[in-house]
Amino acid sequence: MAGAFRAVDVSRVRDGVPRSATDRAATEEPLEIRLHGRPFAVIMRTPGADRELAAGFLLAERVLRSPDDLGTIEYCADPRAEHPENVVNATLVGQTPETLERLLADRRQVAMNASCGLCGRLTIESLAAEGPALRVAWTIGADVLIQIPDRLRAAQRVFDETGGLHAAGLFTPDGRLETMAEDVGRHNAVDKVVGRMLMHDRLPLSDFLLFVSGRTSFEIVQKAFIAGIPMVAAVSAPSTLAIDLARDCGVTLVGFLRGSGFNIYAHPERVVTAQPVET
Amino acid sequence: MAGAFRAVDVSRVRDGVPRSATDRAATEEPLEIRLHGRPFAVIMRTPGADRELAAGFLLAERVLRSPDDLGTIEYCADPRAEHPENVVNATLVGQTPETLERLLADRRQVAMNASCGLCGRLTIESLAAEGPALRVAWTIGADVLIQIPDRLRAAQRVFDETGGLHAAGLFTPDGRLETMAEDVGRHNAVDKVVGRMLMHDRLPLSDFLLFVSGRTSFEIVQKAFIAGIPMVAAVSAPSTLAIDLARDCGVTLVGFLRGSGFNIYAHPERVVTAQPVET
Repeated sequence: MAGAFRAVDVSRVRDGVPRSATDRAATEEPLEIRLHGRPFAVIMRTPGADRELAAGFLLAERVLRSPDDLGTIEYCADPRAEHPENVVNATLVGQTPETLERLLADRRQVAMNASCGLCGRLTIESLAAEGPALRVAWTIGADVLIQIPDRLRAAQRVFDETGGLHAAGLFTPDGRLETMAEDVGRHNAVDKVVGRMLMHDRLPLSDFLLFVSGRTSFEIVQKAFIAGIPMVAAVSAPSTLAIDLARDCGVTLVGFLRGSGFNIYAHPERVVTAQPVET
Repeated sequence: MAGAFRAVDVSRVRDGVPRSATDRAATEEPLEIRLHGRPFAVIMRTPGADRELAAGFLLAERVLRSPDDLGTIEYCADPRAEHPENVVNATLVGQTPETLERLLADRRQVAMNASCGLCGRLTIESLAAEGPALRVAWTIGADVLIQIPDRLRAAQRVFDETGGLHAAGLFTPDGRLETMAEDVGRHNAVDKVVGRMLMHDRLPLSDFLLFVSGRTSFEIVQKAFIAGIPMVAAVSAPSTLAIDLARDCGVTLVGFLRGSGFNIYAHPERVVTAQPVET
């Protein structure tokens, strides 16, 4: 099983000066939850306590109406499974075949997700193959980059009122805010920004970087890449799968962008620093 | 349409002393996205830029392969709709009926969600009616409560390594950490904690409070309530729907638990302060 975190090479930029360093990123991998051996749901998670996660998920989804409904819950024993460590199978007790069929029918969309591959690799390969080519000539200065969090915050009226909203903004390479959106959901804020530009016929968004107020998951980088955005920056940490996707798809990924510094996790060539980034 | 935030009455506790105050909470409401008038997905979001959100969501889900695939996207015009402000309908151009059927079939589970009601009220009412009764005699001191964030942090080994994980922990009323879990996903961390206790036959969890490292959404309170947890506390802000659910279901909800203070958003009777909480 993958650990809860993984060492990753980064360029740590402080006051415009980069140096190579090793960082630790939280592991993100898909977990497929099966009911009686059949696909029920795929969720992105940090490996560890997977059977507990599946049990809690099934309770929250009301598949388990009481703890007594749970028969067994164990890692996949299918010898054909490529990633048995990312598959947990649960059985229920006292369910009629009809109830089970209904539960599974309500969840048919899982087939779509499961084809992604359960190590995340197939998803990345298919995105890299099918997604847009990032044809990008621009670079951004480290001095411009470090001003972006304050600029988004200044535009974030609602956050100041509630402290409860995530924000996402598109910025030009010279640091101008093009458009931003806020939402209780980080992914929603990104969808709003991309969707707005789409409705104005502005895709692909190859002239912009995406800045998000929280952490960077696989899905955030995926959304950016599909929209043609070549650079994602965030206040907080990226997950392992976010880093892998960014590296394979040519997206520059910046994390811990706060104060006078930041870390570059993928494709540092788009960031201009006082000295060249060691690679 | 609901605004991006809403005024809520809270008890603001500082150094053990409560006073009544008005806070602003970020609005959270369901948005149903329809394709050609038929249910496709329901997502929780902050109202505003809903058509943009739907367009970006459909792009990220690869329903739109290119911006040209989008025909129209508009708020629900169905005169029978009870909450047309929470329904956006999109049409695609150049799709065969077969493709549309396949897209909708992959998403059948929406029927389950849509029955929740699109203002969040029906969900809350059905949870309050169907969920467990919270039979709880215990209280917790404000002095104990303010120590909980540090205690969770001390137990959070991985967070210290990566800065990228959310944590959830169950605490007893005297402030002892019973069990905790970490994950890139906040909801996953809660599912892991609840699922672990479920597998040890410890439900309902009426002797514990749930503490989470981030914000409190509707789903977090829902997961707690279903597991029988009578109190949820968080470092950051709750959403409007989280507050509504907590109030209706008898869950004590604490937010902004940091330093020497916190805010109580629902059912303050379980928190013992130096003076009585004004209600």
